[in-house]
Amino acid sequence: MSDRVGFIGLGVMGCPMALHLQRAGHTLNVYARRAEAMQPLVDAGAAACASPAEVASRSDTVFTMATTGADVEQVVFGANGIVESARPGLTVIDTSTIAPAIARRIASRLEAKGVAFLDAPASGGGIAATNATLTIMVGGSEDAFASAEPLLRCFGKTVTHIGGSGDGQVAKAATQLAIVLTLQGIAEALTLARANDVDPQRVLEALLGGSAYSRMLELMGPRMVSGDFQPGVEARLHHKDALIVLECAADAGIAVPGAAVAAQSFNALMARGGGRLDSAALITVVEGMRHG
Amino acid sequence: MSDRVGFIGLGVMGCPMALHLQRAGHTLNVYARRAEAMQPLVDAGAAACASPAEVASRSDTVFTMATTGADVEQVVFGANGIVESARPGLTVIDTSTIAPAIARRIASRLEAKGVAFLDAPASGGGIAATNATLTIMVGGSEDAFASAEPLLRCFGKTVTHIGGSGDGQVAKAATQLAIVLTLQGIAEALTLARANDVDPQRVLEALLGGSAYSRMLELMGPRMVSGDFQPGVEARLHHKDALIVLECAADAGIAVPGAAVAAQSFNALMARGGGRLDSAALITVVEGMRHG
Repeated sequence: MSDRVGFIGLGVMGCPMALHLQRAGHTLNVYARRAEAMQPLVDAGAAACASPAEVASRSDTVFTMATTGADVEQVVFGANGIVESARPGLTVIDTSTIAPAIARRIASRLEAKGVAFLDAPASGGGIAATNATLTIMVGGSEDAFASAEPLLRCFGKTVTHIGGSGDGQVAKAATQLAIVLTLQGIAEALTLARANDVDPQRVLEALLGGSAYSRMLELMGPRMVSGDFQPGVEARLHHKDALIVLECAADAGIAVPGAAVAAQSFNALMARGGGRLDSAALITVVEGMRHG
Repeated sequence: MSDRVGFIGLGVMGCPMALHLQRAGHTLNVYARRAEAMQPLVDAGAAACASPAEVASRSDTVFTMATTGADVEQVVFGANGIVESARPGLTVIDTSTIAPAIARRIASRLEAKGVAFLDAPASGGGIAATNATLTIMVGGSEDAFASAEPLLRCFGKTVTHIGGSGDGQVAKAATQLAIVLTLQGIAEALTLARANDVDPQRVLEALLGGSAYSRMLELMGPRMVSGDFQPGVEARLHHKDALIVLECAADAGIAVPGAAVAAQSFNALMARGGGRLDSAALITVVEGMRHG
């Protein structure tokens, strides 16, 4: 079992995830483009590295947490990327949410060099990362999963091996699909109440007490009612995920008309400059389609 | 406080609701179009009546539970309807899910005859009716609500006074909007998994453990995965409710594009003869838009 763990990408998600690994007794090698992002880890005893390649050279397992598929490919295959330290026995675990097709491409390029790859996207946002209650959906080989599971459980509460390469990302896309459509539904429901001069707070309470209950309703409903759009999960991230869902559906040859509506709402929220607001701001788009 | 309680409409919802009132010590006067539907209540001590008018003449509070707005209007204003026994002091409580505009119309016609009216749609389906765990959203005057609340609590776990006449139905429409869109999202998410050859059962488990959790996911997700479409809640009822949502949105001057997609899916399910199946059969519509 490996104790030499690397972590690349130390933002809202990556920083607390890396700290949980550190606290579990692993000595971390870390890298982030912004040097100051490494400081909390260095303070906790981690070694700051100059590049992803250096992280990989000093580690047996390297985690990555980035925003887009292009970011992940840059970290792995770009200048001073992980691939420069590629060797049999190295395992790369990407916890970003990216398109399944990109994850599969990264996996096959790394496996050609003897490097194991797991796609292990994390659901739950910054709060769950801080509380080590993330939901992790993993794609890749049984062996690689079995080795990685104890590390993943340092920050994940629900850790599920879904299937082969890319299947973790498919499961994450399915999750995000359900989430963005639930958000669209809550926004429309509360707007329907307001447009009828019915107190949305009372409607929210009735919804929470019945069959309409969802975790998103509990988390986002109060923000939609109060108009408090401090993030939370920034809308630009759900927007990115909604576009991954549409891409994944097109690749697989299925129609997802509900997800398409939610994606359009997030497009509109981005267009009006709401990308850095909490995703609860989606209600402003639905409200914007109201009379008067 | 009144003990003379009537109940009209003794189907999957009405029968258990009436039995809870009977068990709470109220002597019921009941009516149903199909005489055999009254038998369980008569066995429990209720008096079978020949018409809604007779129920109303023998009761101080009359509950109605029907399917459509037209059904409720027939029971109230049709031949031998409640209105024939109209008198000050009588209260009518409609627990059906109908359009807010129809509920408001019934209320104003009854109030002109001194009869109080509450719209009190019940959410949760037959199981919640049986377990007395319904969510009841009430529209009407404070006084009428205060008098009716003890009766409503005989079968309702969450009983909320939303606002004036019709506002209970607005809250119910908001609930159904959130529910049908959540169902559409679950159907699309599981279809996305299948179309990628990913085990939908594992994806369902990952979804249940994270931010995508909803009561509908817990209830309907397993049915969608297994293809067991024994009702449960018949799709024709969610279809009816989806159409109420669209009507209510059009009346209020708002756009609900997500709800419109879900309504189209239910239209398609009805078109293929699935109205008496469980609403989980919605996934067959989404699957039907898949390649191959």
